[in-house]
Amino acid sequence: MEAAWSMSTRLAKHITSEDLQSASEAHLGNFATPILKLKGDATQNYDSVCLPLTSTSWKERWREMCTTHHTLDDSKNKANERRAEDWRANPGFVLGEVHMTRLDEGENVIGILSEWLEVDSPDDWVSHDAEIALKQELAYASYLNLHTVILPPPRDRFHVAFYGRAIRSCLENSHFINVSVRLPIYDPSIFTVQQPAITSTPPLSSTSVPSSPTIQVTPQKQQRRPVIPRAPEGELSGTWEMWDIIRSMCDYNTRLTLTLDLTPPLPSAQGILDRWTAEPIQNVFLPASTFIPNAKGYPVLPKGTQNFLQNLMKKYPTIILSGANQRLHPRGFEDKYTDYIRYLEKSSPHVQRANQRDTLESYSQGYQDYLQMPLQPLQDHLGSAVYENFERDPVKYSKYEDAIFAALSDKPADASLVLTVAGAGRGPLVARSLRAIARSGRSVLVYAIEKNPSAFVTLQQRQEVEWKDGVKILFGDMRVIDVPEKADIIVSELLGSFGDNELSPECLDGAMRFLKDDGISIPSSYNAHLAPISSSKLYQEASGSKENVNRQKALETPYVVMIQAATILSGAGDALSRCGTQIQECWYFEHPRKDVVLNEMGLPLTNTHNTRSATLNFHIPHAGILHGYAGYFEAVLYGNVGLSIHPDRKDRISKDMLSWFPCFFPIKEPLYLPSNSDLKASIWRLTGNHKVWYEWYAEAFLPVSNLVTDSQPAEQVINGAGSLIALPSTPVASPSPMIDAVDSSFSWERSEEADNKPSTNGTVKIGQTSLHNPGGRSSWYGL
Amino acid sequence: MEAAWSMSTRLAKHITSEDLQSASEAHLGNFATPILKLKGDATQNYDSVCLPLTSTSWKERWREMCTTHHTLDDSKNKANERRAEDWRANPGFVLGEVHMTRLDEGENVIGILSEWLEVDSPDDWVSHDAEIALKQELAYASYLNLHTVILPPPRDRFHVAFYGRAIRSCLENSHFINVSVRLPIYDPSIFTVQQPAITSTPPLSSTSVPSSPTIQVTPQKQQRRPVIPRAPEGELSGTWEMWDIIRSMCDYNTRLTLTLDLTPPLPSAQGILDRWTAEPIQNVFLPASTFIPNAKGYPVLPKGTQNFLQNLMKKYPTIILSGANQRLHPRGFEDKYTDYIRYLEKSSPHVQRANQRDTLESYSQGYQDYLQMPLQPLQDHLGSAVYENFERDPVKYSKYEDAIFAALSDKPADASLVLTVAGAGRGPLVARSLRAIARSGRSVLVYAIEKNPSAFVTLQQRQEVEWKDGVKILFGDMRVIDVPEKADIIVSELLGSFGDNELSPECLDGAMRFLKDDGISIPSSYNAHLAPISSSKLYQEASGSKENVNRQKALETPYVVMIQAATILSGAGDALSRCGTQIQECWYFEHPRKDVVLNEMGLPLTNTHNTRSATLNFHIPHAGILHGYAGYFEAVLYGNVGLSIHPDRKDRISKDMLSWFPCFFPIKEPLYLPSNSDLKASIWRLTGNHKVWYEWYAEAFLPVSNLVTDSQPAEQVINGAGSLIALPSTPVASPSPMIDAVDSSFSWERSEEADNKPSTNGTVKIGQTSLHNPGGRSSWYGL
Repeated sequence: MEAAWSMSTRLAKHITSEDLQSASEAHLGNFATPILKLKGDATQNYDSVCLPLTSTSWKERWREMCTTHHTLDDSKNKANERRAEDWRANPGFVLGEVHMTRLDEGENVIGILSEWLEVDSPDDWVSHDAEIALKQELAYASYLNLHTVILPPPRDRFHVAFYGRAIRSCLENSHFINVSVRLPIYDPSIFTVQQPAITSTPPLSSTSVPSSPTIQVTPQKQQRRPVIPRAPEGELSGTWEMWDIIRSMCDYNTRLTLTLDLTPPLPSAQGILDRWTAEPIQNVFLPASTFIPNAKGYPVLPKGTQNFLQNLMKKYPTIILSGANQRLHPRGFEDKYTDYIRYLEKSSPHVQRANQRDTLESYSQGYQDYLQMPLQPLQDHLGSAVYENFERDPVKYSKYEDAIFAALSDKPADASLVLTVAGAGRGPLVARSLRAIARSGRSVLVYAIEKNPSAFVTLQQRQEVEWKDGVKILFGDMRVIDVPEKADIIVSELLGSFGDNELSPECLDGAMRFLKDDGISIPSSYNAHLAPISSSKLYQEASGSKENVNRQKALETPYVVMIQAATILSGAGDALSRCGTQIQECWYFEHPRKDVVLNEMGLPLTNTHNTRSATLNFHIPHAGILHGYAGYFEAVLYGNVGLSIHPDRKDRISKDMLSWFPCFFPIKEPLYLPSNSDLKASIWRLTGNHKVWYEWYAEAFLPVSNLVTDSQPAEQVINGAGSLIALPSTPVASPSPMIDAVDSSFSWERSEEADNKPSTNGTVKIGQTSLHNPGGRSSWYGL
Repeated sequence: MEAAWSMSTRLAKHITSEDLQSASEAHLGNFATPILKLKGDATQNYDSVCLPLTSTSWKERWREMCTTHHTLDDSKNKANERRAEDWRANPGFVLGEVHMTRLDEGENVIGILSEWLEVDSPDDWVSHDAEIALKQELAYASYLNLHTVILPPPRDRFHVAFYGRAIRSCLENSHFINVSVRLPIYDPSIFTVQQPAITSTPPLSSTSVPSSPTIQVTPQKQQRRPVIPRAPEGELSGTWEMWDIIRSMCDYNTRLTLTLDLTPPLPSAQGILDRWTAEPIQNVFLPASTFIPNAKGYPVLPKGTQNFLQNLMKKYPTIILSGANQRLHPRGFEDKYTDYIRYLEKSSPHVQRANQRDTLESYSQGYQDYLQMPLQPLQDHLGSAVYENFERDPVKYSKYEDAIFAALSDKPADASLVLTVAGAGRGPLVARSLRAIARSGRSVLVYAIEKNPSAFVTLQQRQEVEWKDGVKILFGDMRVIDVPEKADIIVSELLGSFGDNELSPECLDGAMRFLKDDGISIPSSYNAHLAPISSSKLYQEASGSKENVNRQKALETPYVVMIQAATILSGAGDALSRCGTQIQECWYFEHPRKDVVLNEMGLPLTNTHNTRSATLNFHIPHAGILHGYAGYFEAVLYGNVGLSIHPDRKDRISKDMLSWFPCFFPIKEPLYLPSNSDLKASIWRLTGNHKVWYEWYAEAFLPVSNLVTDSQPAEQVINGAGSLIALPSTPVASPSPMIDAVDSSFSWERSEEADNKPSTNGTVKIGQTSLHNPGGRSSWYGL
C-alpha cells in the first residue's frame, strides 16, 4: 500500500508475452535488453510496467513433469515422475523459462506469476505441484527485488480454501514482497449456461485478443435470447466471497492485496460495487476493451466505470492498462487512453476538493483511515497546538455564535444577564460570545472557567489585551469550582465524535450548580449514532499483528478516524422488517436535566443517570464482513442551530465543519453477514468509580422462512416480497407433567388463530461477536 | 466443576423460604440457628442444601427504591429516589434481608440469588439497579464463603446480551465463587398462546405448589385442543441459544456453569438433549413434581428423564431435589426420592462399566476430557512406563496376532519366511509374532528393529531369556538401517489416534526397502476420520485463559483426549443434500505403495506422495457451536482383521480396545452453526523439510430457498422434503462490453431449461473459522 502516500494514481503498461516476443526481434537502440527497451518506451505514457515473470518453456516443462498420470506403468511416465521428484526436492528455473534475469530489468516492474498455476485444482497432485511452482516463482521475483507480484485468480468457489491456504503459506515463506490476487468483480461465467465448473476470467497474459465475456457465450444462445443480462445477487458476490475467505485465511496480512480486474462489465448495483471499495485494492486491471469510442472515435470509459474508477482513485491504486497499443477504437492511439485516465483523475470530485482550501478533503489529507486515540480533555491537559487545530474550523464557532445569539435574543432585552463559558480553553467561545452579545444588544457579564493551567495563561493574556472588564476568568474544574453568581447561559464545547465520549454529560452535571433554574445550556442536547461498517483497512490498523499481545486491548478501544476505506453495511430497513434505518440513534443527553437527585453541594449522588444502553437492528442487504461500528454525533446547540457529523445530515446542519472525524468501534473477530441478514447491535455506556466506558456486541440473524421440518406441508408459499414473514407458530396445549416427552416430530400445524400473524421468530441466528468490554480491562475515560 | 473429582453424584436438598419460616417457629434442639437445624436434618438423606440468599424484606426495599417512576414530581418519589441514590453509591443489606449471617450457616450451601432480579429487563432503570443488586448479593455470598450461587434465568431472548454483559461484569468483580445460571431445556411458554413476552420458568423459591407448565395454560385452551404438544425446533433451542450467548460473552469463563432445570417435561428429540450434555452442567434442579408414581405408589422418574439423568451422571453434577417433603405421591416419603436417585446412579450403565476391570470406562477414569499432546515416538524415545501402558491393552495385540497368523497362513506352508518387526519397542509384537508362527506351523526367521537405545536393552534381555535364536534384533532407525535380508512380512505399530499422525507413512516408506516385492505390510492400510464436535469443556481446556499469549499456539495443536463432555454436531446426510455421513473419511494410506519413485537407496526422493487433503461436507441438524473436530482412525491389519476407534464401528472391529483415545483438533474461535446448516470442513496433511503437520479450516452454509429478491415470483414453492433444492438459476446471454452495467434488478426468470435442475448454489455462507496452520508456527511432527 505504499502507493497511498504518493498521492496520485500510477499508470502501468501491461506488457504481454507477444510484446516481449516482438521486442526481442526489434532493434534495441540504446537499450541493453528487450525488456529494458520496452520499459524505456513505456516511460512516455506510463509510470511503470507489468509483465509476465515466466515464459512458455516453463509452462511446458511443468506440464510434462506434473500432469502425467501418477502411474509408473511405462518408462516415459516413470522418467517424468523422476524429473518431477527431482524438481520437487529442489525447485528452480532454467534459463529461458523466465523473462527477466537482470536486477535493472525488474526495477519498477509488477510481475505477473504464471496464469496457468492452479493451486486450487480439484486434482490434489496438480494443486500440490502448483503450490511448489508458485513458491518457486515468488522466490525468483523476490530475488529480482520485485515489490509486487500478481497471482492468478482462484478458479473454484468450492476449493477456495485450498487457494487461501497456499497463499498464506506463500506469505509466510516470503518477506517484503506484496502478493496481489487478481479478481474480477464477479465471475462472468455466471451469465453463461453450462460452463464447466472451473471457469474464470481470461488470463492476463496469454492472449492478444481483447478479453470480454462475449467470447464465452455460444452465438446461438445469444441470438435466441436477446435479453439483458441478469444474475442473482448471490452469484455476483461469488468472487468477493472468495476474496474474503482468502484474506481471512491469511489473517488480514498487509502484504496481501487485490488487483481488481475490470474486464467484465460493471454491475450497476451500488452495494456490489461499494463492497470492493472497502478492500485493499493495490492495482486495477483495465483492458482497452473496456473503453468505448466517443462521438469523435476517441476511447472513453462508460459512465458507470468512470464513476467507479474515480471513486477508487481516492486510494491511489496503480492502474494497469492493457492492450492500449492495439488500436481497438477509431482514434485509439496509446496516449489517448493514458491521457484519458489522467484526465479522469484530475476531474474526480474528490481530487478537486482535496486541492481546495478548508474542505474536509484537504484538511484530512494524510489522516484517511489513520486511527487516533480519542482525546481525554478531562483527564489530560491539551496542548496549545491541539487548541490551534480546533480553532481553525470555519464552521463550528460560527454555529456557536449563532446559537448564543439566538439564546440571548430569547431573553428579555432589558435583562442583566450572566453567560459562563465552561471550559474556555484558549478563549474561542469567549470571543464568539462577545460577538454574539454585541449583535444582540444585551447587557451581559461573561465568566470564563478553565482547568488547564497552561491555557489559563493564554486566557489571562487575552483578558488583559482584548476583553478587559467584560470577561471574568476563573481557574478550576467546572465540577467543583466556586462560582460567584449563577448563569443565565452556560456555553461549553465538550463534545466528542460520539457526543458524550469526552464526558460532556459528567462535566455539565457539575456545571449545572451555577445555572439558574430557567437557565440555558449550549449545547442543549446531543445524541450518538451508530452504523455497522466493513473495512479491512481499519481492522488491519486496529488489530495490528495477530501475534500482538496487546491485540485484545487494541480491539477494545474506540478510535477517532477519518474513515475512508470502508463501507456502511446496513441499508434502509424495509417496512416488513424489524430493522431501523441505515444509521441509527443510540441515545440522547439533555442539559439541564431536571430529574436528578442532588446532594447539598448541588452534585448528583451517583452517575447512574448517565448510563445508557441501546439495542439496534440493522438490515444488511448485501453480504459483507462486519469489522466494527462507525459512531457519529449530532447536537442541538440552541433552537434550530446544531452540529452534526451524521453522514446523511451533516451537510444540512453544519456543512464543511472539520472538527470531528467519526468514531470507530472495532470488533475482535470479523463477523460474516450474509445478504439479507439482520444485525442486532448492542452498545452500553457504563460508569464505575471514577470512570466511564463503552461495551459493544453484535449478533447476526438470517430471516428464513424455509427452516421447515420434514412434516412441513409442501403447499406452504413463500411470500415474495418479504422473507421476514416466518411460518406462523401453532398454538397448542401444554403437556401434562405425567407425559414423559413431548412429541418428537415437532411439526407445524396450520390453524385459524395462527394465520396472518407474523411471528417474530422468523430468523435463525448465524453468528455473534465477542463482547467488547474495555471497562473490565483497558481503555476507559477517567472522570 | 470441583465435583467432577468426587466421582459421584451429590444430592442437595432445596430449602424454600417456607421451610425457613417453619424452621424458625419450630424447636431448635441442639442447633444454634434454624438454618443449622434444617441443614442438620437434611444430612440424613442429602449431601448438601440449596437455599435462597435473601428474604422478602430485601425484595420489598428494592422494589420501593428502584421501581418508582423516575420523576421527582412528589416528595415520596423524591425520597425514594434519594434512598436509591444512597443505596447505589453504597450497596448493602440490612439485617433481616438475608437468611444466613454466620459462616457455619453458609458451609456446604448452594445459594440461590434473588429470583426477581431482572438484569435483562427491557426497562433500563430496572436492569441497571438489578445489576447493582446482583453484585451486592454476590459480594455477600462471597463474604459467607459460599462456593456456588445460582442465578435466576434470563427472561427474554431479545435482551439476553444485557444478561450476558451483566454476568461477565459479575465474574470480573468476583473471585473463586462459581456462578451457575439456572435454565430449563426449553422455555415452557412456547407451548402456550399469547403469553406475555417476558415469561420464564416459575421461580425456584417463591412457591410451594409444584411447578409445571400446565399452570400456564388457560383451562379453556386445554379443553378445546387436547392435542399433544408440538413446537418448532427453533423455539426448543431458545434457552440453549441464550446460554450460548451468555457463556460466549463471558469468554467461556470456567466459573460460569449451568443449573439445568428439569421442571418442564423433556423433549424426546435426541439432538436437543445431546446439546446440553456437552455443556458445563454443575447442578440439576429436579422438582418432585417431575416424578410419577409407580404401580406401588412410590415416586419414580419417567423413562426419558431416567435416561437423560443417568447420562448426565457421568459428569457428577449436584442434583438439587425440590419439594420431596411435600408428599406429592402416594408413597412419596422424602427418602424414597433420594433413594431412587442413588439407585439410578448405581444402575447407570456408565457407572457399572466404570466399576468393571478392563473396560474403557474404568481404564479412562480421570482421563475424561483431559488433553494430552500426541506422542512423537519418531522424534522422542518413549519411556518404559509408556510401553507398559500400551501393552496392557487386552485387544490390540491379539488382533495383531490374528493378522500375523492370517498373513502367514496365506504363504505356502513349506516356504522359509522372514518376518521383520519394524519398531519393536519392548517386544510385544515379537512375542505375538512368535505365537502366531507357532500356531501357523510355518518356518519363520524373525527380525526385530528398534531405534530407542533404552528399549533395545529390554529387547536384548528378552532375546537372551525368552526368544533365543528365533529372533534377531537390530538396532537402528528403520528408514536407514542396513537389514541382512528382505522380509516377507513387516509388522509395525506406528499408528496414532488419527492413523498417520505418528508418521507411520513416512517410517514405513523407509522400511519398504527391505520388504520383498510380494511382501505384506501389517498394517496394510489405514484411514483417518473426522467429525465436527461441540464441547465447551474441551475448548476451555485448549484455550486456557483468553489472555494467554500461547493461546494461539494452544489452539493450533491437535490433542489426544478421552472425549466425554462433547457432542457430535453432524447428523446423517440426507439423500437430497451434498453432505456425507455423520463421521467422514479424510484420507487413506496403503503399504506397500507401488507408485513412488525411489532413489538408489530405495527411498522416496520427496515426501510429496504422503501429503493429503480432504474437503468434507457435514449436515448439521441441530444448532450448535463448533469447537473443533474429533479425529479417529481405522486400520486394516491384514485381511479382515482390523483396529478401529471409529465410534460407530469400533465395537464391531476391535471391541474393548483401550490403546487410543480420539484426536481433538480445536478451532480458534467457536463457530455458530444454525439448525439445518452445512459445514464444509477442510483438512490438510502437509510436509516440509523434516516435518509433517496438519492444517484445518471450516466454513458454514445455510441452505436457503428464500433468498429471493423483490421480483421473485410469489408462486415459487418450497419443496417440503428438502430445503437444499435451490431456486433454479436462469440462463441468460452475456452482455456486450459496450453495455455499461448489467441490469440492477438481478431478478429471476423461470425458463424451461432451468426447471428440474437443482442448483448447487442454494446456500448462503454464514461463517468461517480461522485457518489453523501449525505448520507455519508451532506444533508439528518432526521427521
